[in-house]
Amino acid sequence: MNRDDMIAAVQAEMPERRWKHTLGVMETSVLLARRFGEDPERAELAAILHDVAKYWQTSRMEAIIREEGLPPDLLKYDKELWHAPVGAYVAEHNFGVTDSGVLDAIRYHTSGREDMTRMDKIVCLADYMEPGRDFPGVERIRELSGQHLEKALIAGFDSTITHLLAQGKRIYPLTIAARNDLLLKAREAEQ
Amino acid sequence: MNRDDMIAAVQAEMPERRWKHTLGVMETSVLLARRFGEDPERAELAAILHDVAKYWQTSRMEAIIREEGLPPDLLKYDKELWHAPVGAYVAEHNFGVTDSGVLDAIRYHTSGREDMTRMDKIVCLADYMEPGRDFPGVERIRELSGQHLEKALIAGFDSTITHLLAQGKRIYPLTIAARNDLLLKAREAEQ
Repeated sequence: MNRDDMIAAVQAEMPERRWKHTLGVMETSVLLARRFGEDPERAELAAILHDVAKYWQTSRMEAIIREEGLPPDLLKYDKELWHAPVGAYVAEHNFGVTDSGVLDAIRYHTSGREDMTRMDKIVCLADYMEPGRDFPGVERIRELSGQHLEKALIAGFDSTITHLLAQGKRIYPLTIAARNDLLLKAREAEQ
Repeated sequence: MNRDDMIAAVQAEMPERRWKHTLGVMETSVLLARRFGEDPERAELAAILHDVAKYWQTSRMEAIIREEGLPPDLLKYDKELWHAPVGAYVAEHNFGVTDSGVLDAIRYHTSGREDMTRMDKIVCLADYMEPGRDFPGVERIRELSGQHLEKALIAGFDSTITHLLAQGKRIYPLTIAARNDLLLKAREAEQ
């Protein structure tokens, strides 16, 4: 599928507001990829598809999680998390994406994971800070992203965790693992 | 070992300030045990011993963690966590405590765990809210503890996580597991 056809197909999967967000993540992923030495075309491909399953019905996402061997612990956590691994499945099976680095960036763009690749970090951070985002702390994340990919992403995870604490919601363990891993590696790099 | 000898031996392991904290945790554990239907004597025993290893040298705690089969992932996290499982080991081997419920309450008083027992919750909560404690949110924890053991403990974990976020420190996964589990069970109980 060529880029224009893919963009049209993804746009058809979501309301206008979410499509504008996707355009923001595309633009920001390209910018961050250039800044931090990653391939902008691959980053853009992950960004185009990152929310492809965002507006799928819960039952449709659940069927894919159960039937296609996605991590079953997802079903115990907030449905907001499901569209990312389901999106990676859809990118591979419906859009023919074979680049495992792009698929992983889609798969982990909401939760993060241990040992995030640079591509994972770029798409996850772009999702936090694209121009349409407005939440407490987003300006600090944008500031940090000028120089520090990892520090900006840690600030992003901090904002998610702070939000979940305030809402009395559970925190997905993979996000804690991702943040812990980034902090440990940052400390080791400084030593 | 009788109660007075145990108290004298534990007091000798720590500075005056920490002994005053232990007295506060003893008093609060007894109060919470009476309030929530747990055995006050067993709760007090756990409280007496909960910080017995708090002032042990790192190398001495590390040796016990490595040699006595304690969870090795502890060594990758903040040393502040070590004294709790090491304390349970010391309670059993140096003080002859055989009550596994008391030993678990000591072992998990800092981190929490999934499926916390009522005894675990009481000692962990007493450690957060004993009269000498003074940190942002402690009054809210005390208020909640008047009626809701679990809600008060969730607020305690929230304060720990908030503090670790502000300090840029890693969060021990067991604390997230404990909080997630308490929230899930509270939601199930309301349904």
